[in-house]
Amino acid sequence: MLSKNTVKFIKSLHQKKYRISSQRFFVEGEKSVLEVLHSNFLVETLFATTQFLEKHEGMLSRMNLEIQEASQKQLEAMGFYQSNDMALALVKMKENLPIIPEKGDWVVALDDVRDPGNLGTIIRIADWYGIRKLFFSNQTADFYNPKVIQASMGSFCRVDFSYGDLFSWIKNYEGPIYGAFMDGENIHGFQEIKAGVLVMGNESNGVSKEIESLVTQKLAIPSFGQAESLNVAIATAILCDNLKRLEKH
Amino acid sequence: MLSKNTVKFIKSLHQKKYRISSQRFFVEGEKSVLEVLHSNFLVETLFATTQFLEKHEGMLSRMNLEIQEASQKQLEAMGFYQSNDMALALVKMKENLPIIPEKGDWVVALDDVRDPGNLGTIIRIADWYGIRKLFFSNQTADFYNPKVIQASMGSFCRVDFSYGDLFSWIKNYEGPIYGAFMDGENIHGFQEIKAGVLVMGNESNGVSKEIESLVTQKLAIPSFGQAESLNVAIATAILCDNLKRLEKH
Repeated sequence: MLSKNTVKFIKSLHQKKYRISSQRFFVEGEKSVLEVLHSNFLVETLFATTQFLEKHEGMLSRMNLEIQEASQKQLEAMGFYQSNDMALALVKMKENLPIIPEKGDWVVALDDVRDPGNLGTIIRIADWYGIRKLFFSNQTADFYNPKVIQASMGSFCRVDFSYGDLFSWIKNYEGPIYGAFMDGENIHGFQEIKAGVLVMGNESNGVSKEIESLVTQKLAIPSFGQAESLNVAIATAILCDNLKRLEKH
Repeated sequence: MLSKNTVKFIKSLHQKKYRISSQRFFVEGEKSVLEVLHSNFLVETLFATTQFLEKHEGMLSRMNLEIQEASQKQLEAMGFYQSNDMALALVKMKENLPIIPEKGDWVVALDDVRDPGNLGTIIRIADWYGIRKLFFSNQTADFYNPKVIQASMGSFCRVDFSYGDLFSWIKNYEGPIYGAFMDGENIHGFQEIKAGVLVMGNESNGVSKEIESLVTQKLAIPSFGQAESLNVAIATAILCDNLKRLEKH
């Protein structure tokens, strides 16, 4: 039986300030919960329906985990999405450790990407392209926002990330720094490219002037029609696809 | 002064059945309204704030248009989005005319893409890549849904589209038929490609078996990491980028 206080606590985690003060977040939905259980995140409590617990009994019995049975209605009341019919995991946030790229590593760096849906989608794209290191400016959306977790489709478990001052971080980085700009060089014209940092800018303003001054190669996605721009997650996908295609080892 | 019936009528257009019975839809927000006013859509009535009407006075005076002044509050009450502070246009739907590709034309064909946000984003991507012809299976989301219009960011004004039976339409098409499949041929391995139809499948099930049987070249986006899949709008963007890069004239 779930206590009122438990429900209240999980619901408080919809808000960033309570996530920060408790250093906890939650993951909902069968697929994402299974991913987080098998990741290097520490799951403290699993709230799940009888159905979920029976289905995954063997796997769960091998885990050191507090389990609380909950009805679908209770899960939906605690979570963010209304179609969570299986499980919700209470998870400990990771420490904000520095991202240290090695030679040959790609890093996606976000300069104030504010929309949680965009951030989650970018995490999924980075994971698809095998880019495991992400750096987020302090004004970027919160990684632990339920919308980010949901949009990442489990990829939040497979990336390393760090929040911090993007300007200082890039200043200390020694490899090539690529950035997405409307007036950049056409990415289709490149023959080869070396791994480095790809900076993607804010939804309305793009890459800031300050960060722009550190970019060593501006890149543009060629347009063949009349749309004025592309969404930042779409642009990230197209650039990652080109960069991985052009990368020589 | 807006009548209660006007507000009620516009609000009814949030629902597909009323859009169909009246053959009308609405466009909201300053930028999209300006785009639709300059497009080949027929705008019947413009609802706008004093501020919008003053700002665009010269342009509006040259148009044959019914104009009704409305407050920001009224616009928000009628529309779908709560941040519409400027204008809302009541627009006539277009006839569902056939899409007839000419030699060298690309067509994006959607096989039951159900999410309006995905459809709107795909329309924006097609416009970016200069693909002006779109074919939608009957189960694809409704082009005139306010979420589609919003996500297309004005690109809904610049594409021709048709709803119908996708199988029959493709069967009658004589050029190459590309489709996105997990087990397709790596798009990065192609040296050249001829314009044709690109079929994108449903969010959960991909391209249907029936349509698959008509595809002449299956394409895959190479994965370098562990994400299981990409969102259909993201995949459309990456494929369009590759196809336009590989197209020879």
